[in-house]
Amino acid sequence: MSTLIKNVHVLTMDDQMTEYKNGYVLIEGNRIAAIGEWQEGLHSSEEVIDGEGGLLLPGFINTHTHVGMIPFRSLGDDVPDRLRRFLFPLEGFMTKELVAASAAYAISEMLLSGVTGFCDMYYFEDQVATVCDQFNIRAIVGETIIDMPVCDNPKPSGGLDYCETFLPKWKKHPLITPALAPHAPNTNSYEGLQRTVELSERFDVPITLHVAEMDYEMKELAESYQKTPFELLKELGFMERPLIMAHCIHMTNDDIDLTAKYADQVAITHCIGANTKSAKGVAPVKEMLAAGLTVGLGTDGPSSGNTLDLFTQMKLFANFHKTFEKDRAIFPAKEIVTLATRSGAEALKFKEVGKLVVGNKADLVMVETNSVNMFPIFDPYSALVYSANPSNVAHVWVDGRQLVKNHQLVHHDLGHIKAALYEQMNRFVSEAKKRM
Amino acid sequence: MSTLIKNVHVLTMDDQMTEYKNGYVLIEGNRIAAIGEWQEGLHSSEEVIDGEGGLLLPGFINTHTHVGMIPFRSLGDDVPDRLRRFLFPLEGFMTKELVAASAAYAISEMLLSGVTGFCDMYYFEDQVATVCDQFNIRAIVGETIIDMPVCDNPKPSGGLDYCETFLPKWKKHPLITPALAPHAPNTNSYEGLQRTVELSERFDVPITLHVAEMDYEMKELAESYQKTPFELLKELGFMERPLIMAHCIHMTNDDIDLTAKYADQVAITHCIGANTKSAKGVAPVKEMLAAGLTVGLGTDGPSSGNTLDLFTQMKLFANFHKTFEKDRAIFPAKEIVTLATRSGAEALKFKEVGKLVVGNKADLVMVETNSVNMFPIFDPYSALVYSANPSNVAHVWVDGRQLVKNHQLVHHDLGHIKAALYEQMNRFVSEAKKRM
Repeated sequence: MSTLIKNVHVLTMDDQMTEYKNGYVLIEGNRIAAIGEWQEGLHSSEEVIDGEGGLLLPGFINTHTHVGMIPFRSLGDDVPDRLRRFLFPLEGFMTKELVAASAAYAISEMLLSGVTGFCDMYYFEDQVATVCDQFNIRAIVGETIIDMPVCDNPKPSGGLDYCETFLPKWKKHPLITPALAPHAPNTNSYEGLQRTVELSERFDVPITLHVAEMDYEMKELAESYQKTPFELLKELGFMERPLIMAHCIHMTNDDIDLTAKYADQVAITHCIGANTKSAKGVAPVKEMLAAGLTVGLGTDGPSSGNTLDLFTQMKLFANFHKTFEKDRAIFPAKEIVTLATRSGAEALKFKEVGKLVVGNKADLVMVETNSVNMFPIFDPYSALVYSANPSNVAHVWVDGRQLVKNHQLVHHDLGHIKAALYEQMNRFVSEAKKRM
Repeated sequence: MSTLIKNVHVLTMDDQMTEYKNGYVLIEGNRIAAIGEWQEGLHSSEEVIDGEGGLLLPGFINTHTHVGMIPFRSLGDDVPDRLRRFLFPLEGFMTKELVAASAAYAISEMLLSGVTGFCDMYYFEDQVATVCDQFNIRAIVGETIIDMPVCDNPKPSGGLDYCETFLPKWKKHPLITPALAPHAPNTNSYEGLQRTVELSERFDVPITLHVAEMDYEMKELAESYQKTPFELLKELGFMERPLIMAHCIHMTNDDIDLTAKYADQVAITHCIGANTKSAKGVAPVKEMLAAGLTVGLGTDGPSSGNTLDLFTQMKLFANFHKTFEKDRAIFPAKEIVTLATRSGAEALKFKEVGKLVVGNKADLVMVETNSVNMFPIFDPYSALVYSANPSNVAHVWVDGRQLVKNHQLVHHDLGHIKAALYEQMNRFVSEAKKRM
């Protein structure tokens, strides 16, 4: 199968940030076969798509989310300590079927907003992986490990046992990478964290976890270990594994220096929307990048970030970091689009993804420019960061396969997906309403 | 003409924040004739609209914008001192025809995102008023006064002369309020500001201006007058006029106390998106509200805030103010929707607007809840602030007339409006490109 996408402004995000203003991309199989300025007759293909002057760029990468948590959206958004009042108690009512239905919904939402790859952390990740496979989306699926009984395991730290079968089952999948996902350094035992590293080594899989997100996390670890979370993770050997650390709000300059020594293995996922909505603060991204760390953007779960698109995150990123650094010129739009696409792919170690170059995997998004918010465009990166929203996403391909066409899912019916989720949510909703 | 809107969750934003979950609104002429929980057979009408479970609320009010500035969108967003590098020089190429075409485009964009009323400040405001009249939108249209030659007047402070004919011409219009719009306290002469107050009194019209937006403004006024901008405005008599002050970023507690004495006349328009994108800072809204001041939200112009919808502003408002106050519970979503609707109407002194109650003007927006980002909804205000975007706006009425139906303008063709603007932008674009 080959597809030619014409009449598009291509933002390759390659090393030279090459753009093709009257550009095209030829997809053959799951890869980019050709790319450049279009000339009539240059290529033929089985399918031709007219982009009508839209922006074609690498798919957005959501480096931190919880696709099982759609049922929590808009529940207790402005309530203090929501984690203990809503999230932990209601997670007791999550079932295998509900997580699968939620994952299907969340993946639909992400695809419709141009996300072609993501990193997940939740429970019943075997179901999440199955849904990812059904949708043909690229993902890291991390099973949560936490030192308490949870919905998919009555035994504290039961996620470690779960991983013994989960990790080898999905290890060879072309698009899916299974992972270990300790909830946080302060919600696991030392032994649980040690065993996490051992399993990561044994199965050769990455680890993802929340780090330095909560102010009390810093306090607890200082009391228990006289260490920052980053010092603890280094001691435990996490830094020598492929590691994706979410949030890192309370990361000191010393923590950054320590982590930067492992920059080949370790990446940070920055969730500006979730972190600021919950008044937790703004992570020191300027310093992280200056130290050579890879930083991607993440939405966090639908309960924390509410929407799963990267447009919202890019806009919040721009305004927050410019204001915090008191510099309107810092982080120009081009750098922010880089974080949301290419850097995200690097953070998740998605190979041959994140740059539109010949031979790379065809993970692409086309953002239309016909809608009222997308005119005029002096700078396409500015238009993406400051003007666009998910409704501007017209077409999406993952691994060469078109998953969104003219703003609609190609292979799935969103109405059915929503109905199936709604049906599974009955018990959850009645329990939620008791706590509102 | 009567219209019955059924099957909607009505957020009245009235004094009790009454909601009708299976609600309806009956519009007769330009007013709300009935409202409540729907029962079959309760009312009949010439037209019936099925809201499919959407959220029906008062129209959003954009309390500060520059509808003539669509041509500047995405131009030099991340450039320091953009005002002097791009805005002032390129404004020399603005023409009457270009402002009118831009206003038509901007008003279309606002209506499609649920904005039913706004406060404008720019040049050629007679053209802007004409376009507002053509669109049937509610607006304050303020002609800029500044102590230098500008595109619609070669004479410094020529806006004052312009207002002598402009103000009486539009004074009696049912939806349009002409206004005086000094650019800022530091960009006008003392005499120019004095004459502004005189004209405001003579024609009984409001004043709107930028105040305490720039750090150098504070410094210049301290040097010239040994006063803060608010002290100067008080001395000049501005505070005794209907006054809409934009930005007020650098407002001290003393300034707030001073201004609060005139809270019946004076309102503040808070432009969180524009202020933070340009790294200018976060205005002390918590303190303004505590002092009893009326605060509305504004997008600023398309060059500063980029989009003209209030959804973007509500989300930025939530995240910024929660983070700045280090309190996730402050400004719950319900209060933010209030600022974007009812408080905006109060700030602009739009009478009988901003609350859905019987007898009030029928300025309404219906936000659909079928789209993927709008499920589930435990809290409709949370859904509006944290999940919705302009593409969710399905229907809009102003003064009883439906202007947007099923996401499309009813009385205008967006394609024609865009083509007309594009045609007028030729010269502007070539001048802009020279400066990029």
